[in-house]
Amino acid sequence: MTTHYPESMVSLIEEFAKLPGVGLRTAERFAFYALGAPHEAVENLSKLLIKVNENVRYCRQCFNLSEESLCRICQDSGRDHSLLCVVQDPKDIIAIEKGGEYRGIYHVLLGVLSPLEGIGPKDIKVKELLNRLKKDAIREVVIGTSSDTEGDATFLYLLKQIKPLKIKVTRIAHGVPVGSALEFVDKATLARAFKQRQEV
Amino acid sequence: MTTHYPESMVSLIEEFAKLPGVGLRTAERFAFYALGAPHEAVENLSKLLIKVNENVRYCRQCFNLSEESLCRICQDSGRDHSLLCVVQDPKDIIAIEKGGEYRGIYHVLLGVLSPLEGIGPKDIKVKELLNRLKKDAIREVVIGTSSDTEGDATFLYLLKQIKPLKIKVTRIAHGVPVGSALEFVDKATLARAFKQRQEV
Repeated sequence: MTTHYPESMVSLIEEFAKLPGVGLRTAERFAFYALGAPHEAVENLSKLLIKVNENVRYCRQCFNLSEESLCRICQDSGRDHSLLCVVQDPKDIIAIEKGGEYRGIYHVLLGVLSPLEGIGPKDIKVKELLNRLKKDAIREVVIGTSSDTEGDATFLYLLKQIKPLKIKVTRIAHGVPVGSALEFVDKATLARAFKQRQEV
Repeated sequence: MTTHYPESMVSLIEEFAKLPGVGLRTAERFAFYALGAPHEAVENLSKLLIKVNENVRYCRQCFNLSEESLCRICQDSGRDHSLLCVVQDPKDIIAIEKGGEYRGIYHVLLGVLSPLEGIGPKDIKVKELLNRLKKDAIREVVIGTSSDTEGDATFLYLLKQIKPLKIKVTRIAHGVPVGSALEFVDKATLARAFKQRQEV
């Protein structure tokens, strides 16, 4: 499909097609954008690609994304460093920070236990979490793994590992989303909402 | 949505979101690709963006895409330079070349007449086409504009302009696609196929 284009166009289309979810047709449209876009925009994109690839790394403490060795949240002395939330992915931090409610710090596992996919405790940042809990003064660990089988398994595994350290462990509540009508909520969520109903 | 990411990630997401059809969600996924992809792949993409933006231009003769001032097709002495096909877009050349049947040269209008969108003959490469027809020894012009209202209007306009030059003008046939069952062909195409039926 991509022959007959100038060579650099063909190569660019091939590189764009490596982006997640991008096929040759879409890559072609992106290449036409690169062809016709203002020079500054293309130069900016070109430079940022390199910058992100070279400079954005995981925080050495919590494995959040960071341009420095310690991320902005770990560096923030205004936050509660005795409250630690465990999440699966850096994207989860973004979601929680959007909420604006949580003022503690984080630990990113960079994955979730999945025996089916052969992902065990050694493949995610569990050892690093336990080291932090032993070393730092953490009073509560909030586990924020997802509410599917793998997230549940990870929760149970972490609970077993953390209990002996005499640290309070909690899990974020799963239930009916705020503002959502019951008729639109899936069965599993409703079941969980009833099981974990609160006395008022 | 994109706050809380490292600054360069935020900027990269914004640049990716300028690509056609790409929203912030998709741009975010692309940025994660840039973060985790092998350095060579990202560097290659980065370089090609600049290369295409700086070097790929329109052929000075036919307005096909080209890295040189004259495109590969215009430079090819093995092709029939007395047969010229007029198309709307460089992508149309790719499609025709894939067919492998046509051995003439091209002229890209870089658009189509559209009174509704205020696109008149001066906004597309009509003057340049007429200059070529007056200057070069062209025996036949095949008009390959699309078969919609705008393509038809452009065809009629070109026909009127070229006729006085005493050059044979033809138009590519529109009809039932080869290999397509009649039941899957739309009404307009079928109507055209009957109107332009050929005696055998």
